[in-house]
Amino acid sequence: MTAHPRLSLNQATIKYAPFDEALRLTRAGGYESIGLWREPVAAVGLDEAARRLADSGLRVSSLCRCGFFTLPEGPERRAAIDENRRAIEETATLAAAGAPGSAAVLVLVAGGIPAGSTDLAGARARVSEALGELAPDAAAAGVTLAIEPLHPMYASDRAVVSTLGQALDLAEPFDAATVGVVVDTFHVWWDPAVFGQIARAGASGRIASYQVCDWATPLPADVLLARHYPGDGVIDFTAFTRAVEAAGYAGDIEVEIFNEAIWDAAWAEVVERTASSFERIVAPHLSARVGA
Amino acid sequence: MTAHPRLSLNQATIKYAPFDEALRLTRAGGYESIGLWREPVAAVGLDEAARRLADSGLRVSSLCRCGFFTLPEGPERRAAIDENRRAIEETATLAAAGAPGSAAVLVLVAGGIPAGSTDLAGARARVSEALGELAPDAAAAGVTLAIEPLHPMYASDRAVVSTLGQALDLAEPFDAATVGVVVDTFHVWWDPAVFGQIARAGASGRIASYQVCDWATPLPADVLLARHYPGDGVIDFTAFTRAVEAAGYAGDIEVEIFNEAIWDAAWAEVVERTASSFERIVAPHLSARVGA
Repeated sequence: MTAHPRLSLNQATIKYAPFDEALRLTRAGGYESIGLWREPVAAVGLDEAARRLADSGLRVSSLCRCGFFTLPEGPERRAAIDENRRAIEETATLAAAGAPGSAAVLVLVAGGIPAGSTDLAGARARVSEALGELAPDAAAAGVTLAIEPLHPMYASDRAVVSTLGQALDLAEPFDAATVGVVVDTFHVWWDPAVFGQIARAGASGRIASYQVCDWATPLPADVLLARHYPGDGVIDFTAFTRAVEAAGYAGDIEVEIFNEAIWDAAWAEVVERTASSFERIVAPHLSARVGA
Repeated sequence: MTAHPRLSLNQATIKYAPFDEALRLTRAGGYESIGLWREPVAAVGLDEAARRLADSGLRVSSLCRCGFFTLPEGPERRAAIDENRRAIEETATLAAAGAPGSAAVLVLVAGGIPAGSTDLAGARARVSEALGELAPDAAAAGVTLAIEPLHPMYASDRAVVSTLGQALDLAEPFDAATVGVVVDTFHVWWDPAVFGQIARAGASGRIASYQVCDWATPLPADVLLARHYPGDGVIDFTAFTRAVEAAGYAGDIEVEIFNEAIWDAAWAEVVERTASSFERIVAPHLSARVGA
């Protein structure tokens, strides 16, 4: 089987596949790249995961995820910051083990409003403070912290960073190699300002990851699982992909789908359908290749 | 019973109450104002509804709703435009029948992306075109078309207007008395730019309606019904109410809640709880009175 050379399978798309199986299926599907998650890496152990990744010959396009640093000062916040420091080290280790062209990119989900609070502004300020604490560690490790704006329907309980513009505002005080942003079509497709912000992100060299999946309604009962294959919903991937290309992003492009029906399907079939939907919907608008 | 003099009960909060009962309950709850919906008005007939509203002594704060004009040119679009013209006339008739201080405000929900399309930009452009067609009718009738930005989770199938800034961009070509915006906390609470946009809306005199209800998670299976009494969720009503006050809005404030459990509760209890939550959460941040 073949897959586009810039396509990366985000491991969450075949969430229930064990780590080895995810590597094998990705490789067998003709992909050159994979986006890893911390939990399955931890399940086999970081060093062992790095060895197996190296053996696979795959690039790693990102590590999902850390962040969740909106709590006020106290032991829980300290634990969250420490967890992010570990995730930075994991990112560096895995990127070093992946094939040439691997990206040392740690995806950050900000976290929601602390329970019982209505202080959204305060939660957002604490994201900025956390980045300030973590940036030196990331810089020392050669890791890019990639702030992912999440769809505003997750703003209360998962991510107080809701737009690409806001993510860029948070990133701007830092070196672009240290703090960047994720452009995930599912989260930002609705934003009237998004194309201007993609250009802004490109101009400052801050697009650390481009993730694609589609939006369709009705939303499922669990709105976290509302994602679809590119082409199965309403998102204009032509416009998004051209905008991200024009902004100069030339890295791997992850397909990351949370969807119970897709998780329950045969993994090899999901891997193949991901590649074919990418080929049909996204690839025609790409020019650059990784390393080109 | 008493209620704050600027509080208006949006009729949808007691959705299953017949028109007469909604007027009676609102009056009995000590409210001075009600936000009407077109369907229950149509059920009794416009002229009869206007007579009963006049008899009630209540102000009308807005008429919900029309819009839904994102379809491309053709008979369906023409029908939508005609429907909006009827809604403009209904708004004028009801505002004239309501007590002094009534607002001739028609709430507009833009409509979603047409089935099978991924052209969000095109759908948004057609909202602008529809406003251009309808503005002369609204101006002639003395009606304000109030564009309501809806939460981005409704952007695909209900309203392609997703932020207050976008609504103001759409409104700006027109006279402020003719095209304004709705600030509904449920829809805009997450927006990092919202307080600046509220100030902008106030500076141009375009806040046609301020609606309050709260956001809480988990979202219900039908995300349209995710609204709560002020104070029962994460929204900072202090910040929002102060911002809307500072922007110069001195009109009625509607509580509009879509929530199956609240719809199924005893109407009088809902009317009372709406007033008490408003008194506790919103009223302390108000200074001006209608007509003051």
